[in-house]
Amino acid sequence: MYIKILGAGAGGGLPQWNCGCRNCTAARQGQIAPMTQSCVAVSPDKRNWVLLNASPDIRTQLQATPALHPIGLRDSPLRAVIVTNGDVDHIAGLLTLREKSPFTLFATSATHQTIAANTVFGVLDPALVTRQPITLDTAFAPLPGLSVTAYAVPGKVPLYAEDASYDHPRPPQLGEETIALRIAGEKSVLHYIPGCAAVPDWLCDRLREADLLLFDGTVWADDDMQTSRTGQKTGARMGHMAMSGPQGSVARLSLLTCRRVFTHINNTNPVLMPGAPQRAELRSAGWELAHDGMEIAL
Amino acid sequence: MYIKILGAGAGGGLPQWNCGCRNCTAARQGQIAPMTQSCVAVSPDKRNWVLLNASPDIRTQLQATPALHPIGLRDSPLRAVIVTNGDVDHIAGLLTLREKSPFTLFATSATHQTIAANTVFGVLDPALVTRQPITLDTAFAPLPGLSVTAYAVPGKVPLYAEDASYDHPRPPQLGEETIALRIAGEKSVLHYIPGCAAVPDWLCDRLREADLLLFDGTVWADDDMQTSRTGQKTGARMGHMAMSGPQGSVARLSLLTCRRVFTHINNTNPVLMPGAPQRAELRSAGWELAHDGMEIAL
Repeated sequence: MYIKILGAGAGGGLPQWNCGCRNCTAARQGQIAPMTQSCVAVSPDKRNWVLLNASPDIRTQLQATPALHPIGLRDSPLRAVIVTNGDVDHIAGLLTLREKSPFTLFATSATHQTIAANTVFGVLDPALVTRQPITLDTAFAPLPGLSVTAYAVPGKVPLYAEDASYDHPRPPQLGEETIALRIAGEKSVLHYIPGCAAVPDWLCDRLREADLLLFDGTVWADDDMQTSRTGQKTGARMGHMAMSGPQGSVARLSLLTCRRVFTHINNTNPVLMPGAPQRAELRSAGWELAHDGMEIAL
Repeated sequence: MYIKILGAGAGGGLPQWNCGCRNCTAARQGQIAPMTQSCVAVSPDKRNWVLLNASPDIRTQLQATPALHPIGLRDSPLRAVIVTNGDVDHIAGLLTLREKSPFTLFATSATHQTIAANTVFGVLDPALVTRQPITLDTAFAPLPGLSVTAYAVPGKVPLYAEDASYDHPRPPQLGEETIALRIAGEKSVLHYIPGCAAVPDWLCDRLREADLLLFDGTVWADDDMQTSRTGQKTGARMGHMAMSGPQGSVARLSLLTCRRVFTHINNTNPVLMPGAPQRAELRSAGWELAHDGMEIAL
């Protein structure tokens, strides 16, 4: 199984268009590597690819990735897209994937409903783009050679889909709104979880089989945005758990022995700065940080 | 008045993600300059900017334009966005302009309705992003020092908003769906028309006052896509008139003496290739082609 991180950033990317925080400024000055938004490509054979999420940066990402360039006049090696929630950073790229190329769009019924309720996604010609519902905990094959099983992880509905009563953070939901993907190739298993609000014991157990874990690296601490003076919103309010702290992902997943990579990293996360103590702490705990263009063969 | 072409391409840009036509291949090989999608920035003072359309590439475009980088932690010099129709290449970038920055979104009521009907645009916090309806033929000031008057030009509804009976091209409509912008600064007048299905006599007359015309350069001939073997769709079917031919924009606007620049250029347009006879024809008729990063002071 071949994996390419097309975008390691969270919503907004690095630099974020309107942000002058320390990380965004450093990225504009070329001091740290920029990141496009959350998107991963997976292939069993390096010829046919599945996208995990379709970020708003997908045009730039595909252009930067020769393996995903079209073959011939209009034949793309992109065969399927699987989205893990309805967040803008995971579905806006579908608007770019118009232009009369066939592929299959996999999402839970809840996320398909969100997409269908927005007529702008009608640019995906139904004669060419099949919208296939995912049944949780049931394997499907987006391509020969890849078996995918989606399962619910703690999360929340997209911000734009909140109802008026959603003033305060609610306990994370476990449903079709936020899913993890277990992806099995011929020899190995990847778990891809770009959004996760908590790691219950059952999730720790489930991840023990993984050869590679790509996990939600949005925030270092729940109050990253407050610390960086960029806003009041907490990680929990966005449906993302912290890396740090006793209930953070580093601590909760410390018993895993597989390769562990944080992705979906927000522009305000202090781990992005070389020399940051938080970055050293991650490394010594055995975690890597994804970057745009990162390639992994399993 | 200061004008920056952030993106000179039509929907899909150059190269288009799934296209292997001659132009897209040349762009991937670095033989011709790539183009991001249709977007222009205008300023009366180089400190405050209005965007004309919000392309899906807006994050990349803003990043490439230091004048539009944030000042301080979260203060963007982008004060307003005016969209000229509801096409994906003109509104998808609004999804990127979330993140709690204030600006005013100007569109006709028809286009506002299209945007409002798509809940995903709810990411634009109504407490910060004011949605202001444009009344045709009535001047408004998106910024001190700029006076904008929108007027209808022949066009059509976005492809995704067509009803089921829209099988065949219809005669162009003249309404709120497709607008031109007359933008008057202290000393000069720009007319911006990135989509136009025909040039009636009244439009020729109206444009005589312009110091600069930025005009729809989508297709050279109505059958560009057929000629490039990339599809069957005609320019007319997309609401765009040809540059060439007796009813084309070059012939119809031949009496204008102002600076004339084609923008919103489709990836399949043969004028993009250096050495193309069509390109020479445009030049000798007094037209320029926009390119990403082009700057004009009026």
